[in-house]
Amino acid sequence: GETVRATLFPGDGIGPEIAESVKQVFNVAGVPIEWEEHYVGTEVDPRTESFLTWESLESVRRNKVGLKGPMATPIGKGHRSLNLTLRKELGLYANVRPCNSLPGYKTRYDDVNLVTIRENTEGEYSGLEHQVVRGVVESLKIITRQASLRVAEYAFHYAKANGRERVSAIHKANIMRKTDGLFLKCCREVAEKYPEIQYEEVIIDNCCMTLVKNPGLFDVLVMPNLYGDIISDLCAGLIGGLGLTPSCNIGEGGICLAEAVHGSAPDIAGKNLANPTALMLSAVMMLRHLQFNDQADRIHNAILQTISEGKFRTADLGGKASTSEFTNAVCDHI
Amino acid sequence: GETVRATLFPGDGIGPEIAESVKQVFNVAGVPIEWEEHYVGTEVDPRTESFLTWESLESVRRNKVGLKGPMATPIGKGHRSLNLTLRKELGLYANVRPCNSLPGYKTRYDDVNLVTIRENTEGEYSGLEHQVVRGVVESLKIITRQASLRVAEYAFHYAKANGRERVSAIHKANIMRKTDGLFLKCCREVAEKYPEIQYEEVIIDNCCMTLVKNPGLFDVLVMPNLYGDIISDLCAGLIGGLGLTPSCNIGEGGICLAEAVHGSAPDIAGKNLANPTALMLSAVMMLRHLQFNDQADRIHNAILQTISEGKFRTADLGGKASTSEFTNAVCDHI
Ligand SMILES: CC(C)[C@H](C(=O)O)[C@@H](O)C(=O)O
Ligand SMILES: CC(C)[C@H](C(=O)O)[C@@H](O)C(=O)O
Repeated sequence: GETVRATLFPGDGIGPEIAESVKQVFNVAGVPIEWEEHYVGTEVDPRTESFLTWESLESVRRNKVGLKGPMATPIGKGHRSLNLTLRKELGLYANVRPCNSLPGYKTRYDDVNLVTIRENTEGEYSGLEHQVVRGVVESLKIITRQASLRVAEYAFHYAKANGRERVSAIHKANIMRKTDGLFLKCCREVAEKYPEIQYEEVIIDNCCMTLVKNPGLFDVLVMPNLYGDIISDLCAGLIGGLGLTPSCNIGEGGICLAEAVHGSAPDIAGKNLANPTALMLSAVMMLRHLQFNDQADRIHNAILQTISEGKFRTADLGGKASTSEFTNAVCDHI
Repeated sequence: GETVRATLFPGDGIGPEIAESVKQVFNVAGVPIEWEEHYVGTEVDPRTESFLTWESLESVRRNKVGLKGPMATPIGKGHRSLNLTLRKELGLYANVRPCNSLPGYKTRYDDVNLVTIRENTEGEYSGLEHQVVRGVVESLKIITRQASLRVAEYAFHYAKANGRERVSAIHKANIMRKTDGLFLKCCREVAEKYPEIQYEEVIIDNCCMTLVKNPGLFDVLVMPNLYGDIISDLCAGLIGGLGLTPSCNIGEGGICLAEAVHGSAPDIAGKNLANPTALMLSAVMMLRHLQFNDQADRIHNAILQTISEGKFRTADLGGKASTSEFTNAVCDHI
């Protein structure tokens, strides 16, 4: 078979360690990927004063596929979050997070099997804010037909390709009639083209209430940026937290940038204590995108088995294993 | 003792039935309240074409205390939601919802004991929206120093008066630096004046994740309007839903308008099937506001006992009791 080139941004803090885990697991599973590794993160190169080089972005644009660890935000210089900058530069218009109860890792829920698809470029994240008069500030939420159609298209496409039955559009159009109203209108237009997929609209407050009472009622959820931010983390909480939740970003020109959405955990960085599960599961999403389904399945099952057995859980899951012990256990199961 | 006059808006759908339940319970408990009842709701009086009369508003303004059932929104005539209109007209600046696991009503959580305090007048609910160009719409989120200070003051005052230890301000100031930033600044200013109350700031996505993992970590939460809308319903879900959650609105000039926040359930209206718990618990909040603490305690305990025993639960809680059977059972326990 052919070798595929993929970009790797290990990121900050625990990023490099958990990226090593992924590389090790990919090697053992015989994944034919050659990594192009770039440092993107808070530590500015003193010569270039850059924390995000043109070459890093070009690497993703060229390879169209990549994996990203956690990145902290450079403090003080008025920088935007690196995550936001990447979303913007690479046109990462949809953030996809499958959220499934892990057999063998007990939470209050064992019936979560849903996917959140978040519009990732506009809405409340416009960055447009100003003071009107002293003591009165406003921020703009921007919803466009283009971005709404694009994420709705992706959601229905995803639902169909993954044998999902229903797409729920999450909104607050009873209050934000024009912005969320436009978002819904676009979802309805796309829904028309997918008669085989059920479509419903759920108000965000009611959605959150239903998620905590009965998450099994949901299948695929699509929503504007901020609601996606909130709901995807809520859903992660249902299955145990961000350390267990994979994510991937779909970008312009067919880019797929998989990403661990947890923090860079500077307090435990370099100590061989971090849990590489979220990055590994994100890497599995990348493999499925590349249709390396055999390797994806083997790695995925090995991760689930390792967590389920419980012997090699990391500290965040109540265990005592180190990053490398966990990683070795996953490799043994492949 | 003296008789207190209080306004009663039974509201739409199941409103009149559950309001009757409250009156019955108040009678049995010997609450010295004389109700001033006004219809506010979707059915427009054909002579006045009004669904919200000046007299209804004046009644609350004069009595400063009231109880409100569910209200549907008049459809089609471009009306704002009645709930929003009342918030605006009466300056209801804080929505308070204590959220406690009910002993005897089992959900996935038994450790919820928190209070959400929601700014109720501005933020994403400004109603200011417009189309910029075709396919591009924007809505304005407005945060003012005045409204933020007012709700923060109320939250700390509430925490102190109710023996609570901590206030958490919920925000997304890492993205909306100016609007949510101003909200936080106001919370910090007020926090300074309450050194005996702990103060923390929690980003909304993280807050929702923590709420579903470990709600016991929270005490009093204060937040801008939309976050309050979302989080208060999420919290209601943790303890079983809106049918069990009391709420009360604090307004200008010391108004306290208690309110059931569930819907008007037109499908079961008039059938003696509705669950009056949320309205009863809201009425209890009103009693505590009036410092009728003895009656409040007796009614509160009677409600909890009735639900806990399980024999007279209504259909929404999986039981078979009618509204009047449940109400009679509560009366028997008083
Ligand atoms: C770090 C922050 C800017 C980011 C966001 O709000 O989008 C994060 O919460 C996420 O979900 O990726
Ligand atoms: C009905 C709706 C306008 C209202 C809101 O969004 O505030 C409701 O959800 C609430 O929480 O009272």
